[in-house]
Amino acid sequence: MEKEKKAVREITSRDEDFAQWYTDIVKKAELADYSSVRGCIVVRPYAYAMWENIQRIFDGMIKATGHENVAMPLFIPESLLQKEKDHVEGFAPEVAWVTYGGSEELEERLCVRPTSETLFCEHFAHIVHSWRDLPVLYNQWCSVVRWEKTTRPFLRSREFWWQEGHTLHLDEADARRETLQQLEAYRTLLEKHLCIPVIAGQKTKREKFAGAEDTYTVEAMMHDGKALQSGTSHYFGDGFARAFEIQYSDKNNQLAYPHQTSWGISTRLIGGIIMAHGDDSGLVLPPDVAPYQAVVIPVAAHKPGVTERALELAETLKAAGLRVKTDLTDNSPGWKFAEYEMRGVPLRIELGPRDIENGQCVVVRRDNGEKTAVALDAIAETAQSMLKDYAAAIFKKAKDNLERNTVEARSMEEIKAAVSDKPRFVAAMTCGCEECETAVKEEAGLSARCIPFEQRHIADTCAVCGKSAKHMIIFGNAY
Amino acid sequence: MEKEKKAVREITSRDEDFAQWYTDIVKKAELADYSSVRGCIVVRPYAYAMWENIQRIFDGMIKATGHENVAMPLFIPESLLQKEKDHVEGFAPEVAWVTYGGSEELEERLCVRPTSETLFCEHFAHIVHSWRDLPVLYNQWCSVVRWEKTTRPFLRSREFWWQEGHTLHLDEADARRETLQQLEAYRTLLEKHLCIPVIAGQKTKREKFAGAEDTYTVEAMMHDGKALQSGTSHYFGDGFARAFEIQYSDKNNQLAYPHQTSWGISTRLIGGIIMAHGDDSGLVLPPDVAPYQAVVIPVAAHKPGVTERALELAETLKAAGLRVKTDLTDNSPGWKFAEYEMRGVPLRIELGPRDIENGQCVVVRRDNGEKTAVALDAIAETAQSMLKDYAAAIFKKAKDNLERNTVEARSMEEIKAAVSDKPRFVAAMTCGCEECETAVKEEAGLSARCIPFEQRHIADTCAVCGKSAKHMIIFGNAY
Repeated sequence: MEKEKKAVREITSRDEDFAQWYTDIVKKAELADYSSVRGCIVVRPYAYAMWENIQRIFDGMIKATGHENVAMPLFIPESLLQKEKDHVEGFAPEVAWVTYGGSEELEERLCVRPTSETLFCEHFAHIVHSWRDLPVLYNQWCSVVRWEKTTRPFLRSREFWWQEGHTLHLDEADARRETLQQLEAYRTLLEKHLCIPVIAGQKTKREKFAGAEDTYTVEAMMHDGKALQSGTSHYFGDGFARAFEIQYSDKNNQLAYPHQTSWGISTRLIGGIIMAHGDDSGLVLPPDVAPYQAVVIPVAAHKPGVTERALELAETLKAAGLRVKTDLTDNSPGWKFAEYEMRGVPLRIELGPRDIENGQCVVVRRDNGEKTAVALDAIAETAQSMLKDYAAAIFKKAKDNLERNTVEARSMEEIKAAVSDKPRFVAAMTCGCEECETAVKEEAGLSARCIPFEQRHIADTCAVCGKSAKHMIIFGNAY
Repeated sequence: MEKEKKAVREITSRDEDFAQWYTDIVKKAELADYSSVRGCIVVRPYAYAMWENIQRIFDGMIKATGHENVAMPLFIPESLLQKEKDHVEGFAPEVAWVTYGGSEELEERLCVRPTSETLFCEHFAHIVHSWRDLPVLYNQWCSVVRWEKTTRPFLRSREFWWQEGHTLHLDEADARRETLQQLEAYRTLLEKHLCIPVIAGQKTKREKFAGAEDTYTVEAMMHDGKALQSGTSHYFGDGFARAFEIQYSDKNNQLAYPHQTSWGISTRLIGGIIMAHGDDSGLVLPPDVAPYQAVVIPVAAHKPGVTERALELAETLKAAGLRVKTDLTDNSPGWKFAEYEMRGVPLRIELGPRDIENGQCVVVRRDNGEKTAVALDAIAETAQSMLKDYAAAIFKKAKDNLERNTVEARSMEEIKAAVSDKPRFVAAMTCGCEECETAVKEEAGLSARCIPFEQRHIADTCAVCGKSAKHMIIFGNAY
């Protein structure tokens, strides 16, 4: 018990210092390590296993809709990066430059990809000739580099891991359909699999991606009320196609430019999982991506038969499709309870000699600490249904947080008052102009997170300038 | 038929010009595209799907033996690369250097990882403290960069994709056990899943990895008689641990250095698949990694019911666990036959109105062109057993090539004579010294591929110097 208390005490309280709480969890749960290159992290096995589960789920979704994976080069020649004007302006200031290969200075410097639109476009120009070649539905899983000044593990690091989808379509309608389809895929990934509710919508002109015509986003609220931009999907029109001379012969043998999209999610989702669900005892993991969904802990493991029965129990659960760890180390049960609580394992299953006598085990839910005695011969179905309840409960908790901390405002005063004590989402009508959006940024410190698809009519006039309102925007502080 | 002939004619004959044949296949089968960075390729969907299958198979194997995946940073500070003397000498001349982050010159330049021993070691020093922390069994899937002068798609490119396992063990015995276990995993991957026979053995001192105490290898023979080093596994001793100050307290509370291994395979295996199995009509793919194992081609698809029955047939095969493509495009059946032959699809399944009447389909094996009429209600089991026969047949063909082109030599004259008309593997006894190995390199142009585990006693004396023989070495030309 002493050790248990100690382990928990080493994590700063969420409400005391949320940033320190986050850092403590990343370290204690062994999610990341710092490397000697500032701002670049090591993704440790426990976090990488979550990323692998996210990859498996999302890769299945995109393959089911006809996408194929490819691998593009790591390097972009400076001249290639410069081909699309808005794009280079957005990215050139924050890229890493390779200037030497071995001992020879390169004739043209190469940037380490911050994103791969330019590389995909160069390749598309080689492979697309006819309307028969469309659509092209490509994706790659890789890491990219952006030379950020301020970094935090998973949330903002100089190197991060992501997927980037890049697609080419016959016309605007099909490309726009793809853009929104992929945004919906992100919404499903977050809400159904990560148990994180999101607000889906369109980015304002000021916030859209460098080179895109329209950017769409799913925005999640963290426990502290701040926003995490969790996935974006872009419609490019034919701007890149024109810049990179990607053309195809249409059915009438006329040359035409295809329309393009790109869309991405990254390892920052791991930061999102930590901050959306975690509590003062540590992580609380969504079952679909938890490295293991249940941990079996034998109690009084030295007593005859206990270890064997614990292993049998684990095998039963594995056979039912659960990811299970059995901890047979000589650490005390109390230490183990605290350890797996901190690691956010959804179900802890205790099995001692008395449980065995009674033909049962004790299952403890990580989210609410509820203990249930479960008959050993019903453990597989019970564990599965408990995981479902658990997933629904942590989703609801995050949804309650989102709803409780979203407030409507009808004036700049109300916007500022809404976030005077803590970060919140502020829903306000605006006239749609960039000046009013900038005013909210400057006066209240909030950025436009998105123009949600689900609009509410809060007022007739813009909260900033008082002119006729165009749409509701969700403002917030963002990670 | 006209188109079919044309498609095949576009591939140069293997025996006429093997290098051009290889390049033709890479292009025609849409495996890779060149990028504007010299020596860096785009891995296209058809090749990437093979790589995904290799990853899935091998990742399953290493996880079953307790390994965990991680992600290490892309960059290595120059000072970190220099910590192990032999290692830096081996790699520093061929790395790409990042010197600028955004518009600022870096204080210390960073190399793009050519391999990640140094990064893993830095991390290991942070996380290993006690004997309880061992073994550490880590792996990562990523790309690495080596600034090669001469490049060929998959076989040698400036960027390539691979896995690198890095493990730490209590003592030499456990580390050596791991080194050989992983070499055996590579042998299984190649022989069982890629249908490529290998010679497993130890590298000579001259050929071992920079920084390793011992390097082990699996060497495959390509159709032209040249060798492809297909996977290597290294035992490092405690050299890196000492250089990076990785120490643990043993059970007696004494500080000790762990012993280390690393092991890797890469996308060059795709080159190996092309060159071990391909023929003048194109690729011949091993079923376990083929993007699709069967292609269903409706004949006279405009006739009522043909398309529907073709789709049904494909669904039956998919339900049995096969990867299947159905080609419903309006290209002619003849064009499709040639196309999928070139792409190396193991089974082509033709279904026309007469077949449907007879309750059958026609299955054509890619490796030998054999046509078999198969009852529709037996297609799933028949296809599965045909794939097994096919896999055994292409393995045997490659094995025959290996055996036919391996010759024994007892003198330098015999070594030279053995490869006077074409590349071959030459088995010769040597005294084990580096000078004799160098002489074979200089006089016969052959490198020591390995000291095979399966030794044969060819002669009592070294084929080069005539001194007492120590072991048999396999020499060859290598990709």
